[in-house]
Amino acid sequence: MAGRVVQNIARAEASVIDGLAHCGVATVHEAQGRIGLLASHMRPIYTGARIAGSAVTISSPPGDNWMIHVAVEQIKPGDILVLAPTSPCEDGYFGDLLATSAQARGCRGLVIDAGVRDIRDLTQMGFPVWSKAVFAQGTIKATLGSVNVPIVCAGAAIEAGDVIVADDDGVCVVKRADAAAVLKEAQAREAREEVKRKRLAAGELGLDIYDMRPRLAEMGLIYE
Amino acid sequence: MAGRVVQNIARAEASVIDGLAHCGVATVHEAQGRIGLLASHMRPIYTGARIAGSAVTISSPPGDNWMIHVAVEQIKPGDILVLAPTSPCEDGYFGDLLATSAQARGCRGLVIDAGVRDIRDLTQMGFPVWSKAVFAQGTIKATLGSVNVPIVCAGAAIEAGDVIVADDDGVCVVKRADAAAVLKEAQAREAREEVKRKRLAAGELGLDIYDMRPRLAEMGLIYE
Amino acid sequence: MAGRVVQNIARAEASVIDGLAHCGVATVHEAQGRIGLLASHMRPIYTGARIAGSAVTISSPPGDNWMIHVAVEQIKPGDILVLAPTSPCEDGYFGDLLATSAQARGCRGLVIDAGVRDIRDLTQMGFPVWSKAVFAQGTIKATLGSVNVPIVCAGAAIEAGDVIVADDDGVCVVKRADAAAVLKEAQAREAREEVKRKRLAAGELGLDIYDMRPRLAEMGLIYE
Amino acid sequence: MAGRVVQNIARAEASVIDGLAHCGVATVHEAQGRIGLLASHMRPIYTGARIAGSAVTISSPPGDNWMIHVAVEQIKPGDILVLAPTSPCEDGYFGDLLATSAQARGCRGLVIDAGVRDIRDLTQMGFPVWSKAVFAQGTIKATLGSVNVPIVCAGAAIEAGDVIVADDDGVCVVKRADAAAVLKEAQAREAREEVKRKRLAAGELGLDIYDMRPRLAEMGLIYE
Amino acid sequence: MAGRVVQNIARAEASVIDGLAHCGVATVHEAQGRIGLLASHMRPIYTGARIAGSAVTISSPPGDNWMIHVAVEQIKPGDILVLAPTSPCEDGYFGDLLATSAQARGCRGLVIDAGVRDIRDLTQMGFPVWSKAVFAQGTIKATLGSVNVPIVCAGAAIEAGDVIVADDDGVCVVKRADAAAVLKEAQAREAREEVKRKRLAAGELGLDIYDMRPRLAEMGLIYE
Amino acid sequence: MAGRVVQNIARAEASVIDGLAHCGVATVHEAQGRIGLLASHMRPIYTGARIAGSAVTISSPPGDNWMIHVAVEQIKPGDILVLAPTSPCEDGYFGDLLATSAQARGCRGLVIDAGVRDIRDLTQMGFPVWSKAVFAQGTIKATLGSVNVPIVCAGAAIEAGDVIVADDDGVCVVKRADAAAVLKEAQAREAREEVKRKRLAAGELGLDIYDMRPRLAEMGLIYE
Repeated sequence: MAGRVVQNIARAEASVIDGLAHCGVATVHEAQGRIGLLASHMRPIYTGARIAGSAVTISSPPGDNWMIHVAVEQIKPGDILVLAPTSPCEDGYFGDLLATSAQARGCRGLVIDAGVRDIRDLTQMGFPVWSKAVFAQGTIKATLGSVNVPIVCAGAAIEAGDVIVADDDGVCVVKRADAAAVLKEAQAREAREEVKRKRLAAGELGLDIYDMRPRLAEMGLIYE
Repeated sequence: MAGRVVQNIARAEASVIDGLAHCGVATVHEAQGRIGLLASHMRPIYTGARIAGSAVTISSPPGDNWMIHVAVEQIKPGDILVLAPTSPCEDGYFGDLLATSAQARGCRGLVIDAGVRDIRDLTQMGFPVWSKAVFAQGTIKATLGSVNVPIVCAGAAIEAGDVIVADDDGVCVVKRADAAAVLKEAQAREAREEVKRKRLAAGELGLDIYDMRPRLAEMGLIYE
Repeated sequence: MAGRVVQNIARAEASVIDGLAHCGVATVHEAQGRIGLLASHMRPIYTGARIAGSAVTISSPPGDNWMIHVAVEQIKPGDILVLAPTSPCEDGYFGDLLATSAQARGCRGLVIDAGVRDIRDLTQMGFPVWSKAVFAQGTIKATLGSVNVPIVCAGAAIEAGDVIVADDDGVCVVKRADAAAVLKEAQAREAREEVKRKRLAAGELGLDIYDMRPRLAEMGLIYE
Repeated sequence: MAGRVVQNIARAEASVIDGLAHCGVATVHEAQGRIGLLASHMRPIYTGARIAGSAVTISSPPGDNWMIHVAVEQIKPGDILVLAPTSPCEDGYFGDLLATSAQARGCRGLVIDAGVRDIRDLTQMGFPVWSKAVFAQGTIKATLGSVNVPIVCAGAAIEAGDVIVADDDGVCVVKRADAAAVLKEAQAREAREEVKRKRLAAGELGLDIYDMRPRLAEMGLIYE
Repeated sequence: MAGRVVQNIARAEASVIDGLAHCGVATVHEAQGRIGLLASHMRPIYTGARIAGSAVTISSPPGDNWMIHVAVEQIKPGDILVLAPTSPCEDGYFGDLLATSAQARGCRGLVIDAGVRDIRDLTQMGFPVWSKAVFAQGTIKATLGSVNVPIVCAGAAIEAGDVIVADDDGVCVVKRADAAAVLKEAQAREAREEVKRKRLAAGELGLDIYDMRPRLAEMGLIYE
Repeated sequence: MAGRVVQNIARAEASVIDGLAHCGVATVHEAQGRIGLLASHMRPIYTGARIAGSAVTISSPPGDNWMIHVAVEQIKPGDILVLAPTSPCEDGYFGDLLATSAQARGCRGLVIDAGVRDIRDLTQMGFPVWSKAVFAQGTIKATLGSVNVPIVCAGAAIEAGDVIVADDDGVCVVKRADAAAVLKEAQAREAREEVKRKRLAAGELGLDIYDMRPRLAEMGLIYE
């Protein structure tokens, strides 16, 4: 089953991808109907990064990072590496050398449901990583995995070419075919939220803006 | 049982509350006899905040943030929202819009045994949150909870109007009726510690300052 | 069994220790054959510290920090305190007073498979700590433990005088007797990596630099 | 704060307590409005026990079981010991000797948010325990705690004399003053469920029995 | 996105499904190339069950079990319910009434990445459940989810009609289209293992049966 | 570093080992000064087993069980296999074939800080296992580890030939050189406990048997 590298994957439009990055994880997640989040244990190694890119997926055995080298060759500028181990693992699959290589190919970051190391160097390089663990444990290169096959990463089903959005709130995946529509809805949502934000900042209550009082009363809420 | 909003809660003196904030979590916890800490999984979304305020408590169903809107109306300047879900949950109940609304009412922060999102925005707004998770997962508004009822949040029993102290070390609750006495003891403790700090900084040993050697010898400690 | 303090422990050469600090955790771990890492739950209270030092080990009962006072007397400049509780515990054994005392004796930091508090103060003092938890819970001084005996801390066997290396990637222990040889290999590894880093930065692929393609093909990797 | 033993606590009626045991945790939890559950990590050491009793509460330091001896004296036939450590701990506070003693006093079981040991013996004795861990780690007798004071155990606020119900589903607490009313509602619920069980067993659907189809359609459920 | 019920799903051959049940999880997992396992936190409520069936999938909001009622109508004899909450949850979605209903429709069991309750009753009924938690927490019926859509359950991607195999070792999913081939390979594997089992039971070593010695020597294994 | 097999290890006396098995984990742990326990996550796959044996230690890479085959050859009747992965792993290293082989060599059980599978078969064979997880995930045979070298397993330092005691309470290690003395103390402890058990069963209180009342009063315990 393992041992496949799918080349020439389809990607979403660059402008759509960049638009999704700008909207951020929470808004994109809402805009597509509250789906696509990776588990909350996926945390950034440093704060402030907000990226989007096309997923180059990697399925790797536990403690074996060989396939990352294979995946790097498949990177096109703007891509994001997304690695799921075939069983739970927190070894440090990825460090500054692989980051140097990936960055040289135009890679925007890494999402890995395992460990990462050299985080001081990665931070200085501005190469963001969302991971399950920071762990220096070295890995081997002994067994095949696959690249650009469908994976489940941190609880989310991801296919090569899907759009990955990642920021301080975590990571979200958008199906490639839905990306343009999701962006449109996300931007509309942002516009709507801007109006609300001003009213709330002025002291208006959500209870009034969203007209919640009648429904709360109907359901029996009692003020004492 | 759910569906109650208690209004007009009693609060501690503002000067007492601010004094407790200045002492910080560790000192306040010690001053009241080593009680009141919330579990260590309650971590701040950014470092450096040190606040205290009166608890406006919220009991909410899992994945339902409706009651936060109800609670915001109950906020008085200097209050802190404290939310406990009715069963374990890490969904993102709270984000930048609710923070805008709470901040407009004078709220000093949020303590939530669940998830929070938009943490980049919250950081920029200077709205501190201590939470169990950072997670963008959206929530619904379908079921009643209660506001300003007694709750258990992250292992601590909290009543509306109790004083919440929160900083980089975590979160501590002080019973409203005890707040003034606890502050007095906390300040006394700070003064005592200042003396010890100077002696320790000068190289004196705790073994000598606290006269521990006789008791250690009596218990059988052997130097080899 | 408990109740022993071993004095006059052997330590590695200062220049070797400092060299290991410069190499960092990931490189040192690799240089000694991928051994010696403490578990990934050992996280620094602030980023950017990179230290090495001789271990002054502490075995303490849960919730009892008495032995830290005993251990502080055993510190020589350049040492690192390493504490393992005798059963799992996340109480705050260590805060700013003990840090003041330890720092006054020349201690470079603390590694503790339990909790730490006063992290704002510790950060301002520049006293780094790697811990399992940040937790303000106070501890007592009632039961003997031991100092400078062999311990297992966060899954790693550590003896007094072993070299502890700690940075943003976590914590690694090097056997005292191996320290010089490990440093030599670590420095050689750094030199080798520098060459690779330049080639990777220039866009060369790991697949080619490491000549991986024949072996991948032999194992059956298929490009689609 | 610690160091108190409250004697002569009030208890619910024996017949009410026994009735609640018969209804079981899930029914009692529902009958009182879905409150009172202890966290799901509280698991029985053997299956098949279903008990209820009045809580004799114990607040103990981590790794110190002294207060259990104090609490045993307070047991009246039909009581259940409920222990919460003052900070997270999984040490084995309780084993066959204490169980022998408690059982001799008429104790029906133990609920402990920490560890238990000698579970083979406890099983043979028919002394049920719900705990966070099975762990043989010994404990000391050095520091005071309290008996029959309000505690938070596994996330639930419990007062001495409250009714504890425990079975294979976990543990639930019923406020003493509510016990009779909760039993009445629990029994009514059981009767209602018996009717439904028969209809469901006969192949009728919940969709029809509860008349869910109109509401599902109204909310937009689509059958494809 | 939610609010869909797919009817008339395709299922694998009954004889294939039953054959897979007989082979068990470990063998089936191996036979299909070591894929398809659900996470190890999915544990059976009682030991000894070994089942296989066609997945009727359920995507449900946290703490809302409404869709299970919808799903029960879609059950055909031999099916297995498979529920994934839309965010992490351990509430007790399922108990004896739903089990009665499902069993009346011919359902063989439940796989749920959340909680289950009434496990004494379920055990007596012989209705096996593999779950993340045993927890009595009640759930509501307020929000739509979907039935027979693709889900990710405990880390595995599952589509309606896929074959679920579950026993004391956990849970494995087999793609419907692969089921017959996987069964064939699983049975071949069983036959091969039977031969090895006899040789091993007779005291032959795996080192010799699998001819491992030359390769171990080549890789440098040293006997001291 | 890896790649070593130490043969001809020393073992404790068979009668001592069997005596320790009879005493059980809790008593042995106490008898040697409350040391030697493995972490509480090490649980038996079935209840009722109580064994002791000499440790044949295995250090294995994550997801690679090759070294178990090497270790089986080193087993002498009465030994127990003890495996620690070189980084955290829960894959199923061990199943019924390896158990058949180990049992044929006289192995009494397995202690593994990782996963195990085929637990139905192992239960039927009466081959007990204490593990971190039950997980069917298959493992490879690609990388060397070592046999009979010192390891840290579930937090305990273990050397080949140390005595492993395991029962329903978990797992404990006794240093080979201490085994006879520990047995003696364990048996003395059992005798002392038998006396206490009878007094406690007769209703005497630990408060009186251990003469705790004066010390409790001295420390300030207040009866209300």
